[in-house]
Amino acid sequence: MTKIRDIGEFGLIERITRKSKDKNDVLVGIGDDAAVVKPGKHLQVLTTDCLVEEDHFTRRWFTPLQIGMKAIEINVSDVAAMGAVPRYVLVSLGLPKNLDVKFVDEMYRGMRKVCDKYDIDIIGGNMTHSTQIFISITLLGEVEKKNLTLRSGAKPGDLIFISGYVGNGRAGLRLFQENVKGFNEVKKRYLEPKAKLKHALKIAPFVNSMIDVSDGLAGDIGHICEQSNCGAVIYKDKIPIKIEIREVARILDENEYDYALFGGEDFELVYTVSQDMVDKIDGFLIGEITKDKAVKIFSDDKKQQIKNHGYDHFINSIYV
Amino acid sequence: MTKIRDIGEFGLIERITRKSKDKNDVLVGIGDDAAVVKPGKHLQVLTTDCLVEEDHFTRRWFTPLQIGMKAIEINVSDVAAMGAVPRYVLVSLGLPKNLDVKFVDEMYRGMRKVCDKYDIDIIGGNMTHSTQIFISITLLGEVEKKNLTLRSGAKPGDLIFISGYVGNGRAGLRLFQENVKGFNEVKKRYLEPKAKLKHALKIAPFVNSMIDVSDGLAGDIGHICEQSNCGAVIYKDKIPIKIEIREVARILDENEYDYALFGGEDFELVYTVSQDMVDKIDGFLIGEITKDKAVKIFSDDKKQQIKNHGYDHFINSIYV
Repeated sequence: MTKIRDIGEFGLIERITRKSKDKNDVLVGIGDDAAVVKPGKHLQVLTTDCLVEEDHFTRRWFTPLQIGMKAIEINVSDVAAMGAVPRYVLVSLGLPKNLDVKFVDEMYRGMRKVCDKYDIDIIGGNMTHSTQIFISITLLGEVEKKNLTLRSGAKPGDLIFISGYVGNGRAGLRLFQENVKGFNEVKKRYLEPKAKLKHALKIAPFVNSMIDVSDGLAGDIGHICEQSNCGAVIYKDKIPIKIEIREVARILDENEYDYALFGGEDFELVYTVSQDMVDKIDGFLIGEITKDKAVKIFSDDKKQQIKNHGYDHFINSIYV
Repeated sequence: MTKIRDIGEFGLIERITRKSKDKNDVLVGIGDDAAVVKPGKHLQVLTTDCLVEEDHFTRRWFTPLQIGMKAIEINVSDVAAMGAVPRYVLVSLGLPKNLDVKFVDEMYRGMRKVCDKYDIDIIGGNMTHSTQIFISITLLGEVEKKNLTLRSGAKPGDLIFISGYVGNGRAGLRLFQENVKGFNEVKKRYLEPKAKLKHALKIAPFVNSMIDVSDGLAGDIGHICEQSNCGAVIYKDKIPIKIEIREVARILDENEYDYALFGGEDFELVYTVSQDMVDKIDGFLIGEITKDKAVKIFSDDKKQQIKNHGYDHFINSIYV
């Protein structure tokens, strides 16, 4: 086993700076004090998100390839939620000295694999020593102003849609935590989340607001409401949850709606649409935007205000 | 004491998202899935650099204000080395749960203080739980193509200059490590490094290549040579080292030239200039670029090839 401390920072940088093909507008990629790009004529979106070992992933469950893939997908998901096309990535890595260099190679292969899929260039990076692995990604994208989809654009009367099934993020986690056999598809979707970029770009011209489900459906609809200065009613029975997720909840004596509403890490898109635009988009109708500022859940003929605001990494603990 | 775990991620974000004044071209700052800016007509430079606790700083010596300041300065230094003007920052923080919220407030005040000095907007960020504090910064800047200063532009015959005195980064560190009393100015410059942005912008139109001294003079001149496919001779006796740094070395029975050549964290600029441009710039002349690809040091009538390539966080250990 070759450890990172054996080859050092410079050896490591040489290993991972096999560049993906540069676009013509990348003048300088990895290797200088900074990357240089020629900006396009459209608006630029910029996001940064980070994975920390034992908080967002654990080596016990995730392969290094999957860790690298997830690091890019979660950032693409944020850019997608703006209606934007991802373009450039900067990677900041913190790595323990005794980590196997193969681990870094595999993690980087995962990042490149996802970047290639979305035609993203890795233009810069930085590596340093840390006790926990962390991967901090900054992603830049481009969007035409008319396609920009903010959290703040929701209007009372808008219908709320979701791009796909939810609850898998938390269900997958719970399967690993409780060491449950089987449910391989649920586990795989948890280990390899996918951003819904194509869907986002298709619907962006027609929606009033959009967000990706990273904190849980309730919390993320809450973010739209805060930014749009309105409220929402979520129709509990309409939340799309797969049968196998209900089965996971049943086995663990938990509630599948808790997974969906408060679990997070589903990376589906939630968007709100004026009623006259509904035939332009697809997705699952799950609620509507209200003037009243609370986020409420409607079920069994009762409306209940939601208190829990989604997953919080400082308050909850997943892996420890 | 209020700990982070008491207020959670959302409480924390609310505390630190007091925005610095937005420029007109920031359409969306903190609060959405991504920031949105209107790019300028010039080239864009992008860099990312990270501070990790016990590797780049320790709470025993640095105040939280100084940690925040340093995180921004080191990135401004990279952008300055490209001849570019810093514009936007994204901040990705990893914080222990039991950290005092005041610590975060102070660290963020340090970041804002430096951002205000350089007229940089903090447009995005992300916070997560980690056992060590880390601060990963992505900085975007702008540069007119004619002022862009790459590592790759050095030419044989160029003279090598440095913007100021070196050796302070390592000397300051050694003073703290060895618990030496006094030398307060050396210590302060170590705790509060400053990017040489003004100097960089002034000389950028006239230099062939530029880099900032983060790894040590020898290693950083080595980077220029690698990228420019040439070599260098450094005149040892011309390296500007302050008397007090020589005094630190003497007291600790060490060599001040080791501090300057291999120490790093000085954040002065090294640049190479054609002989006919020398009267357009200022700085200390310390060597010249050669065809021969080695980096050599010239002293006492002997040329010696440099082997050590500067500070490596994976091989060296500062604080542990």
